[in-house]
Amino acid sequence: MSYVDGTAPCKVAVLGAGSWGTTFAKILADASQGTGRHIVLWGRRQEVVDQINVHHRNPRYLSTTDLPHNITASTDVVEVLKDAELVVLAVPAQSLRGQLRGWAGHLARDAVVVSLMKGLELETDQRMSQVIEQELHIAKDRVVVVSGPNLAMEIARQEPTASVVACAEEKTAKWVAELCQPAYFRPYTNDDVVGVEIGGIVKNVIALCVGICEGQKVGDNTKASVITRGLAETTRLALALGGKAETLSGLAGLGDLVATCSSSLSRNHTAGRMLGEGLTLEEVNNRMTQTAEGIKSGRAVKDLAAKMGVDMPITNAVVAVLEGKLTVDDLGPLLLARELKSEGD
Amino acid sequence: MSYVDGTAPCKVAVLGAGSWGTTFAKILADASQGTGRHIVLWGRRQEVVDQINVHHRNPRYLSTTDLPHNITASTDVVEVLKDAELVVLAVPAQSLRGQLRGWAGHLARDAVVVSLMKGLELETDQRMSQVIEQELHIAKDRVVVVSGPNLAMEIARQEPTASVVACAEEKTAKWVAELCQPAYFRPYTNDDVVGVEIGGIVKNVIALCVGICEGQKVGDNTKASVITRGLAETTRLALALGGKAETLSGLAGLGDLVATCSSSLSRNHTAGRMLGEGLTLEEVNNRMTQTAEGIKSGRAVKDLAAKMGVDMPITNAVVAVLEGKLTVDDLGPLLLARELKSEGD
Repeated sequence: MSYVDGTAPCKVAVLGAGSWGTTFAKILADASQGTGRHIVLWGRRQEVVDQINVHHRNPRYLSTTDLPHNITASTDVVEVLKDAELVVLAVPAQSLRGQLRGWAGHLARDAVVVSLMKGLELETDQRMSQVIEQELHIAKDRVVVVSGPNLAMEIARQEPTASVVACAEEKTAKWVAELCQPAYFRPYTNDDVVGVEIGGIVKNVIALCVGICEGQKVGDNTKASVITRGLAETTRLALALGGKAETLSGLAGLGDLVATCSSSLSRNHTAGRMLGEGLTLEEVNNRMTQTAEGIKSGRAVKDLAAKMGVDMPITNAVVAVLEGKLTVDDLGPLLLARELKSEGD
Repeated sequence: MSYVDGTAPCKVAVLGAGSWGTTFAKILADASQGTGRHIVLWGRRQEVVDQINVHHRNPRYLSTTDLPHNITASTDVVEVLKDAELVVLAVPAQSLRGQLRGWAGHLARDAVVVSLMKGLELETDQRMSQVIEQELHIAKDRVVVVSGPNLAMEIARQEPTASVVACAEEKTAKWVAELCQPAYFRPYTNDDVVGVEIGGIVKNVIALCVGICEGQKVGDNTKASVITRGLAETTRLALALGGKAETLSGLAGLGDLVATCSSSLSRNHTAGRMLGEGLTLEEVNNRMTQTAEGIKSGRAVKDLAAKMGVDMPITNAVVAVLEGKLTVDDLGPLLLARELKSEGD
């Protein structure tokens, strides 16, 4: 198989035709021009698949992007997975385990699996790479995580973007990185899968908090403090789980957090803003066309932190708001309300 | 004297009646309500001083803020400094040394000196605390630096803000922190003066770069990468000078950088945006009413980094733009143009 001997794959499967899955298919396809490589996108909805095959468009998620012609789509996951040496997963985090159980028997032997998902599974508190290893019975050296300051819409417009490609086995990370570097997308490899995943998971919760602040018309000083303290609690959790502080100071930690918290394109940021403006959680969920993953993962992050004995005051406050135990008006004063003390305490 | 025995001072001098000096005087005055403490602001312009004394306003810099009545102002620095146990300095960084030479003989014995300035002196490459120690012949335990995500306009509007109060001697830092905590301003102490100053100095240079990106209509993914890699090069410089990585991950590093890069209130960010839109450096300088310190400090940072053998590609690129050796159109592609590599390299 190609990742073992270093040759490039002929077929890549991308499971999930939402905005990030479709955009990542475009990255892979643009990087494959002239190689004969074929990118096959699996989507649940027939009309999305038809649009991609006939018009090379995914109007539901990326209304203005023309997709390369070496992307085709199908609703038949068995056909999509057949002989794919690289399998990219971009489905909603909380449904991954159930879907993998249906797909496990159809993966090519030795396929490398890439996770684009930024969520922590409720109940089990497991990261997506852990769910993949368990359900597909594959070793860490074949599981890769891609994460960074990667707003899909901007990448679809080919705006220059850097990202992190993480795998316990450096050779695998490099193999994947080489497959996804068109001129506008620059992957950096990293072996700290835990740090990269925790950065991507918790930033959605912190982005909810920054969004709430914005909805409440709080200034940039406070928002910057929330981002700073939010990254500090993210780093504490990552360290407790065996991740590295440098990873959280890098593109998949700080970078992703800043991009998400600056952008009106971020779903979590937008959901937080609506909460801050006084909408109920139900009203927010009704207005969103795609999942704001932080709303779901928040409680799992809180539980995991409690289990690990890690102090995460911002996450706890956001979860309290989501559970209706704290009003958004009471959240603001809480964020800076600590006794006069040394910064590191 | 009060900082030695822990008693609060009766008189505080603030030298410099620009937006940050005036705002910090307000912080000190609001925190002194009911104590009989008197805050005296020195300003160069008679009309600014008169406005403060007569109308309790500084319309040139803080048009809508009512100043507390325990702030008075004077153009007579000898009178302002007389018996002031705490002296706060908020003058343009590049003129500090010259001004201190005129003021040195008039400081009260054992006065504690606070620097609000974020600049590196050209030619000497010295930090403001170093200039203060040299010119006033005082020891490190009496020199304090205040820095953080502190956009003056927001603090003047009493929006909740956190900040860092740094001194080599913890007791002095605490003494100052206790004098500047009205309800809306929360100081955290830190003993890493080098880290705090370097964070404040280099963020102005990085903010210029982010501003240029914005002027060029670059997306949030790229801006987040510039912030991330900018903080990484700032941290490298601080470490080489004996500072701590945690400081740069805190409010005076990451926090200040994010606030500056998010806000249209930041002079450096605004100056960068004008450069990115195609204005010349001269045109930008003509349009600014207050100094964009990064334009001046940039070259000193570059020189210091070279002297210390620290790689600072973003700073070097910004200085090249300021010196007319690189066009803003050529800057963008440079920022992400590195070979496929591991993130930590």
